[in-house]
Amino acid sequence: MEYRRVKDQESYDAISQKDIESPDGRSLSSTAATSPLGTAGGSKGKNSWKQKSIVTIALTLLTSSQAILIVWSKRAGKYEYSVTTANFSVEALKCLLSLLALYRTWNSQGVTEDNRLSTSFDEVSVYPIPAALYMVKNLLQYYIFAYVDAPAYQILKNLNIISTGVLYRIILKKKLSEIQWAAFILLCAGCTTAQLNPSSDHVLQTPIQGWMMAIVMALLSGFAGVYTEAIIKKSPSRNINVQNFWLYIFGMLFNLVAICVQDFDAVMNKGFFHGYSFITLLMILNHALSGIAVSMVMKYADNIVKVYSTSVAMLLTAIVSVFLFGFNLSLAFFLGSTVVSISVYLHSVGKPQQQK
Amino acid sequence: MEYRRVKDQESYDAISQKDIESPDGRSLSSTAATSPLGTAGGSKGKNSWKQKSIVTIALTLLTSSQAILIVWSKRAGKYEYSVTTANFSVEALKCLLSLLALYRTWNSQGVTEDNRLSTSFDEVSVYPIPAALYMVKNLLQYYIFAYVDAPAYQILKNLNIISTGVLYRIILKKKLSEIQWAAFILLCAGCTTAQLNPSSDHVLQTPIQGWMMAIVMALLSGFAGVYTEAIIKKSPSRNINVQNFWLYIFGMLFNLVAICVQDFDAVMNKGFFHGYSFITLLMILNHALSGIAVSMVMKYADNIVKVYSTSVAMLLTAIVSVFLFGFNLSLAFFLGSTVVSISVYLHSVGKPQQQK
Repeated sequence: MEYRRVKDQESYDAISQKDIESPDGRSLSSTAATSPLGTAGGSKGKNSWKQKSIVTIALTLLTSSQAILIVWSKRAGKYEYSVTTANFSVEALKCLLSLLALYRTWNSQGVTEDNRLSTSFDEVSVYPIPAALYMVKNLLQYYIFAYVDAPAYQILKNLNIISTGVLYRIILKKKLSEIQWAAFILLCAGCTTAQLNPSSDHVLQTPIQGWMMAIVMALLSGFAGVYTEAIIKKSPSRNINVQNFWLYIFGMLFNLVAICVQDFDAVMNKGFFHGYSFITLLMILNHALSGIAVSMVMKYADNIVKVYSTSVAMLLTAIVSVFLFGFNLSLAFFLGSTVVSISVYLHSVGKPQQQK
Repeated sequence: MEYRRVKDQESYDAISQKDIESPDGRSLSSTAATSPLGTAGGSKGKNSWKQKSIVTIALTLLTSSQAILIVWSKRAGKYEYSVTTANFSVEALKCLLSLLALYRTWNSQGVTEDNRLSTSFDEVSVYPIPAALYMVKNLLQYYIFAYVDAPAYQILKNLNIISTGVLYRIILKKKLSEIQWAAFILLCAGCTTAQLNPSSDHVLQTPIQGWMMAIVMALLSGFAGVYTEAIIKKSPSRNINVQNFWLYIFGMLFNLVAICVQDFDAVMNKGFFHGYSFITLLMILNHALSGIAVSMVMKYADNIVKVYSTSVAMLLTAIVSVFLFGFNLSLAFFLGSTVVSISVYLHSVGKPQQQK
């Protein structure tokens, strides 16, 4: 997702970014949590490792194909659909998928305390927070372009990696070893290197306001991700589909507000689904599935795995694009990929005890 | 040394490269060897760590000032001296300095078996090998420019880092831990990243002949460095000034050949020191001292430390150049510096047992 050169990022970026970074998703499976907080299924350590691997690979592949869909849709021409309605559709689709999964669970296991849809104010009161954080971040996104151009913004977005690591440490109180911290800084440097192009140096002329906003946005995005992990892992026995259902309800609400503010006239005059094409539908489906994958990664792994997963996806996308679209890879890309690969290696060998 | 943009590298590069990479140097001190092979002074482990630090810092600073002298001399205009005579002068100056150091040793300790200048065929027979390897490499340097332009060559020179690591492992049979290997690859990627500029992608169009020659040159350079370390450490009790004296004698001889082949007419018509300026003399002095520092690093540390030292020097040079010459640092430079810094950190925390 990070790789594409976003000249016209207004149209596609909002949707892709919104959803890959929206850390809640619909888990189609309702197997037990395998986090340190997990209660059910404590004896299936090997199984949990398998689940973790599967959801991580799924997220990586979905994120890669997302970026490829974006390039494909650009090739096919411009689409004039409203980004806000597409975002709303993604939330609605995820809601639907989560209800379907819940329905299956109810059929097989019956309605229990953990998988009933009804909720308490205490439980649901924190659920709007991630959606609200993303809304603030998406609002800021419109203002930051007064100080930063789109390629520089792509570079600055890599600050998300650092902010996620720092907030993961502070809020979730999980430890990374020193080598894993080194690996995390390398991941950020490597991703940025892989995206370097001749105009990248513009980012160094970013005024202080631009830097401040970029840092605030990175913190908001990182905070939303870490907060969602905290919500999902707080009640490990609670069915994740119920948790996600409520997260998505608020996602839909906030996107409804965005439609009213930004695209009210367009939707009124041309209709909600104006400008949708087959590729648009594919992208919405992809984003919904990516959201599900993100949610599963939060359940079975954590934000750190999510960051690695999407970073590796960025590299995969570039390599696949060489074959699909005849892209040329730059020397910076090779260097960045090398650094990212070593970062992945160091992260795995640098584990503190048996934390995960 | 690696940082400067070498458009006109023919004039300055030969001298700087020759000497920084010439792994023999004149040690002004004649304290005991502190390598694992060291025999004398076995009880001063802390002292040896201090010596190692001092020579490493000296090499780093000398290498930095070398590159700065090169930029300064470029600013001051072109000098038309013969590079081969400058190289010869450097070897001669190092020879002189080594004799002075030996003279001091003889005065204080008397002539012993270890510090006598006379040698046997068995001892001296391997000494021409590093000088010969460098001569072959310098010859190849003239041919590689048929396939590679100067900026691309600067990029390809970073292969030296990898070749040094590999040959260090194979020839000296010293182990690097897996994390240290990862750090070494990062060092190479980081240095290359720091040197990226908009025209760097040319290097990807390098024809196969260019790659082969670059790899052969990297292997020759790495082999010469590792071989010199082997020579210096083979007889740990032997006075290093004697060892260096003989290394430099062959360095002078090979440079004499180079003068005859390349600059015979110029020297005959215009004189040996034609075109020398104050800066030229400063550069010769700096190269001679750098050679001494390299030698000391070989004695008290190893080729790996030398590679790190010159890499960090490259970054220091760039930073100092910002203040001295108003250079602008690129984003790639910051990213590369970050990666190099983490590589240094990983190298130090990733030590296998107590290998050094």
